[in-house]
Amino acid sequence: MKPKKMWDVPASNISKNTSNPIRAIVDTIELNPNPDKQMIALSIGDPTVFGNLKPAEVVIEAVVESVKSMKFNGYVPSTGTPKAREAIAAYTSTETSHVTAKDVIICSGCSSSLEMCITVLANPGDNILVPRPGFPLYQTLAHCIGIHTKFYNLLPERGWEADLKMLEAQIDASTRAIVINNPSNPCGSVFDEAHLRQILDIAARRKVPIIADEIYDHFVFPGNKFHYIASLTKEVPILSCSGLTKRYLVPGWRMGWITVHDHDHVLKEVRAGLQRLSTRTIGSNTLVQGALQAILSRTPGEFFRSTLEVVQTNAEIAYGALSAVKGLKPVMPRGAMYMMVGIEMERFPEFSSDLQVVEAMVTEQSVFCLPGKCFDLANYVRLVLTVPPEFMREACERMAEFCATHYVEPDGHQSELSDADEVTSSEPVKCDCGASDVIRLEIASATPDT
Amino acid sequence: MKPKKMWDVPASNISKNTSNPIRAIVDTIELNPNPDKQMIALSIGDPTVFGNLKPAEVVIEAVVESVKSMKFNGYVPSTGTPKAREAIAAYTSTETSHVTAKDVIICSGCSSSLEMCITVLANPGDNILVPRPGFPLYQTLAHCIGIHTKFYNLLPERGWEADLKMLEAQIDASTRAIVINNPSNPCGSVFDEAHLRQILDIAARRKVPIIADEIYDHFVFPGNKFHYIASLTKEVPILSCSGLTKRYLVPGWRMGWITVHDHDHVLKEVRAGLQRLSTRTIGSNTLVQGALQAILSRTPGEFFRSTLEVVQTNAEIAYGALSAVKGLKPVMPRGAMYMMVGIEMERFPEFSSDLQVVEAMVTEQSVFCLPGKCFDLANYVRLVLTVPPEFMREACERMAEFCATHYVEPDGHQSELSDADEVTSSEPVKCDCGASDVIRLEIASATPDT
Repeated sequence: MKPKKMWDVPASNISKNTSNPIRAIVDTIELNPNPDKQMIALSIGDPTVFGNLKPAEVVIEAVVESVKSMKFNGYVPSTGTPKAREAIAAYTSTETSHVTAKDVIICSGCSSSLEMCITVLANPGDNILVPRPGFPLYQTLAHCIGIHTKFYNLLPERGWEADLKMLEAQIDASTRAIVINNPSNPCGSVFDEAHLRQILDIAARRKVPIIADEIYDHFVFPGNKFHYIASLTKEVPILSCSGLTKRYLVPGWRMGWITVHDHDHVLKEVRAGLQRLSTRTIGSNTLVQGALQAILSRTPGEFFRSTLEVVQTNAEIAYGALSAVKGLKPVMPRGAMYMMVGIEMERFPEFSSDLQVVEAMVTEQSVFCLPGKCFDLANYVRLVLTVPPEFMREACERMAEFCATHYVEPDGHQSELSDADEVTSSEPVKCDCGASDVIRLEIASATPDT
Repeated sequence: MKPKKMWDVPASNISKNTSNPIRAIVDTIELNPNPDKQMIALSIGDPTVFGNLKPAEVVIEAVVESVKSMKFNGYVPSTGTPKAREAIAAYTSTETSHVTAKDVIICSGCSSSLEMCITVLANPGDNILVPRPGFPLYQTLAHCIGIHTKFYNLLPERGWEADLKMLEAQIDASTRAIVINNPSNPCGSVFDEAHLRQILDIAARRKVPIIADEIYDHFVFPGNKFHYIASLTKEVPILSCSGLTKRYLVPGWRMGWITVHDHDHVLKEVRAGLQRLSTRTIGSNTLVQGALQAILSRTPGEFFRSTLEVVQTNAEIAYGALSAVKGLKPVMPRGAMYMMVGIEMERFPEFSSDLQVVEAMVTEQSVFCLPGKCFDLANYVRLVLTVPPEFMREACERMAEFCATHYVEPDGHQSELSDADEVTSSEPVKCDCGASDVIRLEIASATPDT
C-alpha cells in the first residue's frame, strides 16, 4: 500500500447522518430580539430553566444520601442495580401489567432508552412509524443507522389523536415498530383508553410492536387519566421508555429506563438484544440509581400536583388569551408541558412560513416559540408551559400585539391596531424568581431535548 | 400487504453483533469455588469493589454541593457545560499540547467516549487497529456496526511495547484509526516517550489518526512518567479518551470525555461528527459536571499517591510471590491496576487452556483471575491489583499451592508438593475492611468494564 501524502480524515456516515432537526432549523433562524423587550423563551422543553420549578426536597436529600453513603461509586450491571430496577418495576406496574426487575433496563436518560429500542428492533432499510407532529429525536436515532421513518398524522381537530387509517395504511412489510408518544411533545395531548385500544388493535392485527415514549407518564391535568399502553393489552409487545426527566424535573440527571412488556415470549430475542446493547456504554450514573427507590417512593403527591398546577395555569392563560387573537388557533392541552398554536397563515401574508413568523416575533416582541416545522407540522408554533405565569401572560400579550400588527382581514384590510402610528412598547417583564439570568436565548441548552 | 398470523419480532443485526467477549467467555467458565475457602475475585477491574479504595473526600463534598445547589438539574449542551469542559481542558493540557473547552466532549463514561470515537472515524467495512492483549470493548464497539478490527501485538518481553513492525504491516487502505491504550489494561504497562514517538512516526508516515484510550492517565508507579500521546506530536490527529473512572475511583459515575487534538484542521469534519453524535443521547449526568471543576482541581496529590501505593504494593507482592512459582511468569506492571501472569502450559499438561486453569483454580483455591483469552492472549491470566494487600498475599499463596499441585517437571515428574497426600487447606482469609460481603463472584458487576 502506498503511503498517503496528505491527511484526509473524513467523518463516518453514521455521524454525517446524525442530525438534530431542531438544531438544523433553529440554526437557520435569524434571532435578533427587540432590545427594548426582555427575551421570553417559550422554546425550551426544560422545566428547570426558569427556576420556578425545582425538584422535590426528598429527591435532593435522597441523592445527597446516596453520594455520602459511598456505596454507589462502583460499576453496576449495565442494565442497572437490582434495587433500582425493582424500584422502577414497582413504580411502573399497574393492576393489569405486572413489571418485574427483569423487565427493566436502566439507560442514560430517556433519549438513550429510545436509542436502544429503535436500534434493537430495526435494521437498515426497515422502517418505524412516528407521529407527526412529533418529537424529532425518533428520526435522528433511526436515520443515523439507516432506518427509515414513516409518518402517521395526529389530528388537531380530534385533540391530536392519531389518524388511525393513515397509521394502518403506513404499515408495510418492513415496518418494525410503531412509536407512540403519550402524553405528547409537542401537542400536550393525552390519549384516552379508547384511543389507545384502537392503536393496539391495529398493532395486534398487523403484528407490529410498539415503542411507547411515555416520558410524560402521569403528567396529565386533573380530570384526565394516564394509561401506560402496556396496561391495556395482553398481546401486543411493548417497549415503554420513561425516566425521571420530566415528572421529577431533573432532565440533566440522565436517568431513563425501558420496561419490556412481553407476552408469550415474543420479545425473547429483543430482550437479549437490549441487554447486549446496554453493555456498549454501561447505563446510567450510579449515584442517582442509589437514590432511585427513595425518589420513586417518597416524592409527595403534592409535588406533582403543584407542578401540574403551574403548567395547567399557563395552559389556561395561553389558551384564553390566544383564543381571542385573530389568526391564531391554540389547541388546549391535557398534559405534558406544551401547547400547539395554529397560525392561519393566509391572514399573515407577509410571512411565507411559521419559521418567518417565529423570526419576526423574536425581532419585534422578543418572544421565542419553536416553529411547527421542528416537529414536521407547518403553520404551528409550540409554546412551553413551564414558565412563571407572569411570563406567560406577558408573552401572550406580546403575541397578541404581534398578530394585531400583521393580521390581514379576509377582505384585505389590515387590523385596526396596526394602523396606529405606534404600538406601545411594554416594559421588560420582571420576575422575582431569581431566574432573570436564564431568560435568554439558551439555544445551546435548548437543543438537547425540547 | 397480508397481515401476519404470528408475532415474529427478531432482534436487529446491530444488537446481535454486540457482544462482550469477556461475558461470552466468563459465561462458559464453570465456577464452583471451594466451599472451604473464601472466594477472592481478582477478576473485577473496579477499584471500589473491595471497599479499601474510596474517592477523595473533596470529591464527595463537591458532588454533594453540586446536588444541593440545585443549579445542575437541567439540560446542558450535549457536549457538556462550558465550565466542566474548561476544567477538563485545564486538566489535560500540557506544555506542548494546549486543550481548550472547544476541544472537549463530555460523554457518559469512557466507554461512551470510545464508542463515539470509533463510530465517528470508521464506516462498515473499514478497520481499526487494536492491541493484543487489549481491552475487548474496542472490538465490541467496532464489530456491532460492521467495523473490522485488526490486531497488533504487545510484546511481554519488551514490557508490553507494541510490535511496531506488525503495527505498520497491519495498516491497509481501509484502516481508519490506531487504538492505543496507555497505561494498559490488561498489561499494566506504561509506554515511555521514545516508544510513543515510534508509534507516532508510523501514524504520521501512514497518515492514520490515533484513538488514545488514556483512561489510566497519570496512573503510573513512581519512577515512571505518563505522557499523553498528543503531547508528543504536532502532526498526528488524536482523539484522547479519559474520565474520572479509574484515577478518581468512581467508575459508576459515568463521567468520561474526549479531547480532540487537531493540527491544520484535519479533524474539522470529525469534530462536527462528534458534536452530532453527542446529540443522540445527550452526554453525562449534570450533577457530576457541576462538581467537575472542584474535583479536578482540588483532589490532593496525596490521594493519588496512596491509591498508587496500594496498587504498587500488590504488584510487588504478586510479582515477588509468583516469580518464585514454577510454571508462572508474572510481568511486572508499571501502572494501571493489573498484572499479566504467563502460564507455561506445557508444565501443566492436565489443562489444555488458560480457561481450564482459571476454572480449576476457582474449584480448588477459590481464586478467580480472568483468563488471557478475554484479552485475546492465550496462556496468561490477568490479576487485578486493587484488592487489600492481605487478599493479594493469600491469593498468591493459593496460586502457588495450585501450581505446585499440578506442575509437571520437564522430565515428566510432578512436583514434590503434589505428591503429598494432603495439601493443607488454609483458613478463609479475614478482612477488616468491611468488604466481606463483596468478596464474592460478582460476575454481574464484573462484566461492564474489566
